[in-house]
This record gives sequence, C-alpha cells and structure tokens, in this order.
Amino acid sequence: MAYITIDDRYLKDFTTDAEMDEWQAYVTKAHNELHNKTGLGSDYLGWLEYPNLIPNDEIERIKAVAEQIKQHSELFLVIGVGGSYLGARAAIELLSHTFSNELSKEKRNAPKIVYVGHHLSGTYLHDLFDLLDEHDFSVNVISKSGTTTETAIAFRIIKQYMKNRYDERELRKRIFVTTGNEHGPLKQIARKEKYETFSIPDDIGGRYSVLTAVGLLPIAVSGIPIDEIIAGAQQAYEETKVDNIRNNQSYFYATLRNIFYNKGKKIEIFSTYEPRWHYFQEWWKQLYGESEGKDGKGIFPATATFTTDLHSLGQYIQDGERHIFQTVLFADELNRDITIPYEEDDVERLNDLAEKTVHSINQSAFEGALIAHTKGGVPNIIIRSPKVDAFTYGYLVYFFQKACAISGYLLQVNPFDQPGVEEYKKQMMSIIYNR
Amino acid sequence: MAYITIDDRYLKDFTTDAEMDEWQAYVTKAHNELHNKTGLGSDYLGWLEYPNLIPNDEIERIKAVAEQIKQHSELFLVIGVGGSYLGARAAIELLSHTFSNELSKEKRNAPKIVYVGHHLSGTYLHDLFDLLDEHDFSVNVISKSGTTTETAIAFRIIKQYMKNRYDERELRKRIFVTTGNEHGPLKQIARKEKYETFSIPDDIGGRYSVLTAVGLLPIAVSGIPIDEIIAGAQQAYEETKVDNIRNNQSYFYATLRNIFYNKGKKIEIFSTYEPRWHYFQEWWKQLYGESEGKDGKGIFPATATFTTDLHSLGQYIQDGERHIFQTVLFADELNRDITIPYEEDDVERLNDLAEKTVHSINQSAFEGALIAHTKGGVPNIIIRSPKVDAFTYGYLVYFFQKACAISGYLLQVNPFDQPGVEEYKKQMMSIIYNR
Repeated sequence: MAYITIDDRYLKDFTTDAEMDEWQAYVTKAHNELHNKTGLGSDYLGWLEYPNLIPNDEIERIKAVAEQIKQHSELFLVIGVGGSYLGARAAIELLSHTFSNELSKEKRNAPKIVYVGHHLSGTYLHDLFDLLDEHDFSVNVISKSGTTTETAIAFRIIKQYMKNRYDERELRKRIFVTTGNEHGPLKQIARKEKYETFSIPDDIGGRYSVLTAVGLLPIAVSGIPIDEIIAGAQQAYEETKVDNIRNNQSYFYATLRNIFYNKGKKIEIFSTYEPRWHYFQEWWKQLYGESEGKDGKGIFPATATFTTDLHSLGQYIQDGERHIFQTVLFADELNRDITIPYEEDDVERLNDLAEKTVHSINQSAFEGALIAHTKGGVPNIIIRSPKVDAFTYGYLVYFFQKACAISGYLLQVNPFDQPGVEEYKKQMMSIIYNR
Repeated sequence: MAYITIDDRYLKDFTTDAEMDEWQAYVTKAHNELHNKTGLGSDYLGWLEYPNLIPNDEIERIKAVAEQIKQHSELFLVIGVGGSYLGARAAIELLSHTFSNELSKEKRNAPKIVYVGHHLSGTYLHDLFDLLDEHDFSVNVISKSGTTTETAIAFRIIKQYMKNRYDERELRKRIFVTTGNEHGPLKQIARKEKYETFSIPDDIGGRYSVLTAVGLLPIAVSGIPIDEIIAGAQQAYEETKVDNIRNNQSYFYATLRNIFYNKGKKIEIFSTYEPRWHYFQEWWKQLYGESEGKDGKGIFPATATFTTDLHSLGQYIQDGERHIFQTVLFADELNRDITIPYEEDDVERLNDLAEKTVHSINQSAFEGALIAHTKGGVPNIIIRSPKVDAFTYGYLVYFFQKACAISGYLLQVNPFDQPGVEEYKKQMMSIIYNR
C-alpha cells in the first residue's frame, strides 16, 4: 500500500467504477505526455525527476550554510513571494513549534523565521524594523527571474538598513541569494557584492520549486531535516510512476477532481484539521490555481481549516449552493497531543471525554463532518497521511505536484505557465511610470 | 458623502442604472422588514440598534477590567470559536503592531494576545503550555450558549493548569467569562467560582456580536480605544438608515452582489492589499457564509490578500472560469509607511521609485489589478476607506452586518440562523458517545 492513500468510502454516490474506467485512457495519455516530455509546457518538467537528481553537494552546502546561519543569527528573514516562499513557509509552519517565534531564546533551538517581500505593505515593512532592531539576523532573498517587484523593493530597503548595521565582511555572512537567472539583476548584485548564491534549474517553474534550494535553505535554517523531505519525495516518485489510476493515488486524486468538475462541482475546498497546515494549503492554492485557472476553465481552489471553519464555512458546505466538492487531508497520528482531564464537578458534562486525547475528539469531528457533508450532497475525497513529519511533507509536495500536472493535462491546459499573472504587472508598471 | 464609499467606476460593463432601479423595490421591502422587525429571523435583530443602546456602564466596566488585566498579565488568552473570537481577532490584528506578540516586553504596551478553543488541535494545545509557562496570564472564555465543545474542552484544560499555578483569589482576577445563557454550564461555573461575567443579549447572534462584550473586552485589552469603535458603528448606523440604494452604500453593496449572483457569478472574492486585514476577511467569511449559504443557495465567500495572492489566485482571477466577482477593500492612507531608498548603483532599476512610499506603489498595484481583472471579465466592487483605525473598524463591522441582513433578505433566506452547523455536531456527538 502507498504511504499516502485516498480513502474513497464516501464517494459511491458521486462516481462509479465505470466512470473511472472511461477516464483511464485520458490518464494514460497524460501520463505518457508527461513522462515522454511531449505535452504542453514540456520545457518545465525539471521537477519530475529532481528528487533523484538533486546533487548531494548542493544538499551538503545548504546544510552547512544553514548551520552557519543558526550560529550567528537569532532571526532569519525570507524575502520572496509566490513559489519563492510558500513551500518553505508551508514546511516551517507545519513542522515547527506552534509558537516558535514567540518563545524565549532559551526555549528555541533555531532562529525565528520571518517573511517579507511577499506584498507591498508599508506598515508591515515599517513594523519589521522594530523586530530587526532587537535581533542579529540573516536574509535569504529568493527570486527566479531576479526582477520580482515586491522582492526587489523589500531587499533594497533591508539591504540599506543592514549596511548601516553590519560591515562588508559581516554582510557576506548574512546575505544569501537564490535565483535562476544568470543575467538577472539579483545575480549581478550577488556577484558584485560577493554574496553566496544558490541557483534554480531553468526547467523548474516557481510553484514547482520547493524541493530545490528555493525551499530547502529556509527549511534547513528552521531545523527541519531536509534529507527526510527528499526521502519522502523520492518515495512519492516511486509510488506515482505507473499510469494505472487504481495503482497510483496521485492520479486517482487528479481524476476524481476532473470527474467532479465535469459534473458542475466548480469549487474544491481543500480542508485540514490542524491549523499548522495553513501554509501548506496556501501552497496548494497557488499550485492548482496557477496551473489550471486559464482559458476560461479550472476548478476554483478554496481552503478551510477545521474545526475552526465548521463554525464559519460549515453552514455553506452543508446547505449552500451545490457547486462544491471537498478534499480533506487528515493525519492519523500526531507527535504532540494532550489529554482531557477528569473533573469531580462535571458542570460542562465533559467527563465522558476525560482521559481521551484532543486528537481523538478531532478525529470524531472529522468523521462526523464527513457523514454530515456527504448527506448534504458534497463529495469528499479523503487523503490520509499516517503522520505529520518531514518525510510526509516531502511526499505530499511531490504527490500534489504530480497530480497537478496530470490534472492540468486532463483539463487540456498548460499546467506550467501563468500568462494571466503578467497582465496586472503590465498595468501596474504603466501606472507607476506614467504618474 | 458617506465615510465609506463604493467606487463603481469599473462596473459599467457589468450592470446598469436601470437594473439598479428594478432592484430598488426589493431593497425597500427588505429595509422595511428589517427595521419593522417583520422579516425572517426577526428575533435576532438586537445588533441593529445596539451601537446606540450599549449601556455606558458596560463600556466603562469593560475598560476597567481591561486595565486591570493589562496591569498583571503579560499574555491574554481568548478562548472562543466562530463569532466568539473572529471579530476581536479582526480588530486586534488590523490595529496592533504587526509583530506585537514577537516584540520584547519593553517595546510592547499591552499583553500578548493568544487564541485557543477555536479548534481541536492537540498539538496546538500541547505547545501552548510552553508559552504560558513563560508568562503571567489571564483568560476570557467566550461562548453564547456556554456549551461549545472546542471552547469547553480548551477551558477545562487551561483551568486545570491555572489551578496548579494560581490560588483561588488570584484566579478570580484572571478568569473572565462572556456568555449569553443564564442557565448554561459556563454561567454555572462562573457563578460557583465567582468569576466576573459579561453577558450577551439574547437577540444578538454570534456572528453579529462583535460590538458587544464578546468582541470589546479582548479588543480593549489589546489597547485599542473601544469608544472609537462604537463611534464608528454609530456613524455607520446613521449613514445606512435610508432605503434608497443610491444614498446608502451598504445597500448598494448588498444589491450589487445579488445582481452578480443572479448573473452566474457564484463566488465573491473579498480582497485587500494589507495582510493585517486577514482576520477581518475571516470574520466577513463567517458573516456572509453562515448568513446566506443555505437552502441550496448563496454566494461562495472567498478571500485574497494582495499583492501576495496576485502571485497565486491572480492567474485564476485573470483567466479562469468566469463565475467570480471581486469586492476590493482599499484604505487610502496608512498611519505607518516607509520610503524606497535611492541607490547610486541602480542594478535593479528601482530608482524611478526612489523616495516614493511603499503604499503608493501598492496603490499602483491596486489600480493595475483593477484594470487587468476588469479586462478579464471580472466585476470589481471597490470599497474605499479613508484610513485604517478603530473608528474605521467599527464603521465597517456595522456596514457589512447591515449589508448582510439586506442581502440575505434579497436572496430570500433567513440571514440569522445556521441550521447546517448543527448537522456535523449531531454526527460528531453520536460518534463520540458510541465509541
């Protein structure tokens, strides 16, 4: 059995085996196009084999730099947007202590991780310096093109501040550049100022780049074992390399979502039951939204965190317009949990739950919501993970990337371009330079 | 002119004056039902006049308790879910320092605010105690019914921990209860243990309760002037009390969304350009999702934070399936901003932006995205706010609540109930008690 499995016990009212058989031919075609590199966007398939091809000395250099940063920095600033920060943030928030940035120095064993360059908020940048003033810090600026506006502006502001605080020698120990464009401005700056640089393969697009230095350096700084992430991705590679839907859970997921889309389920709600998955969901949203939302087509990618959002979106999911399906990611085991205490005076009538773990109650909420939402006419795809760790993270990243590529081919779009992102940039630049 | 205005300059391709005239009769009917309390759910209209009716001694007591908490607590724990925490969190994240919980004690002038009881995460609860161990703290447990499972479990666990740490006298200075049910378990506990209590009017539902003690106590503890919030809500009350769509921006918003919904725009993306609006958007999502998502109807409420999500959902908005419209909230002025520096060696070619504020570039991104998304066939409702402060927050809360009530009536649903939320609870309880 595969490490990550799709539990389809609530799908029998919404799809059939015969339907799956009909889709097999399309999936096989998509699989062959992907693996033979003959499909749309085939210049951007570097991610497909990368977990097996990532050079060992690259991994070792990332780990060495991370170690050096941990020695001299109380805070680590990740400057990037979109595919240049979401994957790293997803791993770090999933696998770190829930309050890692708020704990005292004594309780932390890695720098605080802070993000910037992912928007144009003057207030956020202003406030950031109150935090930087209090910490010795390093930065990793990440941009494949080297020209991303948000990132470039943040980097210029922060570099200026650092130059007032650290001398040139110190700056070279504290500024790290990750970029893919040998001739881009970011690479030029790095060359001139002698900042250490990591590169991004040309054939790996931003949203598929988390398993390169783009994601791995910040993740390593936070103390997460990146070897295990790579090992997880390698296992996912092995377990998703056949074309048969029934033997490939990643393709099963890709097929189900296209089946539902064709039946008018135009919104996918990707739900989890732990808040620490939040940025993993945001990473997923970019991956699927940018890969499929084009040519007037595509499932609208939405997310929910339960049980929180059962008190918000829950009403809509249960009773609202029936144009939604749900993909629920649930981890069976947690590595940190807590037990509900018994109380003599049981005013709230919770003693029936006493000595049970909170996660076991969460599991009941999950099962209850599945039954309720299915009764409400919402198909539920359940993705089950045995636990939450670095291996699982690496596996899931690869699993969803592979599913996304196949899903995009089934939808007959190019899952590796993003032509619509350029339009607002063009309009923005024309406004800026004509003011 | 109203304090908050709808800028409709990008809507001419998507709706007409004649259409608006046709809707006026329905709006007038909805307005009369609301103000005469003859519509659906009219037992829950307490919020309508509450900004003018909130007792002055209630406000003063909230402020006094908040002051007391600030004196003896480094951390303040808000225990609640859905309408019992989203409004407070929305205000606190919008109006506090971006990194308030991460700054050193010396730089903070209010306790750290931390949330719990809004999910069933064992890991989150486990990790929380590492943080609590390091701080003197107080709690406010909030549940209208007094029976909310998530909240009750978290409160029991935390109360037990506190009893090991503080004596009875100290507990009475550190535990505050907000509940609406005189006979509920939470009220019983408060009575027995002599915890100070705040009540919630019977005729104000959870998601409409932020301007009561539910929201105001946590907000006051964080240092935000609650009088200004009330003043903002009062002004919104005054400016939204006529039935004419053209003279009531709140009704204009309600009408536009129903017009687009009827034209097949089934998803509303509520977008902002500052990350600090995030929980305001979450509050909005609950308000609209629970109020309208019923009887197989309702706009699906989604959110985006720009420019961050222009690198994620942006592609879909520009080019994906055309079943979306956007509501963009933009504040013209920030009270904290930063300037882009000039650099002699302009490798990144940013000197054209030098000496400009980051917010002015954000404004160009906003204008650019409006043009691009409109060209892409997405109607954009622009809600303009002159600034970001407590008054604005109070105004917007009331503005959106009023619009939601009218919008629900236009959709012919009861905007004040949430029958679908009960279904999963029923299923969950049956699983828990049969295991």
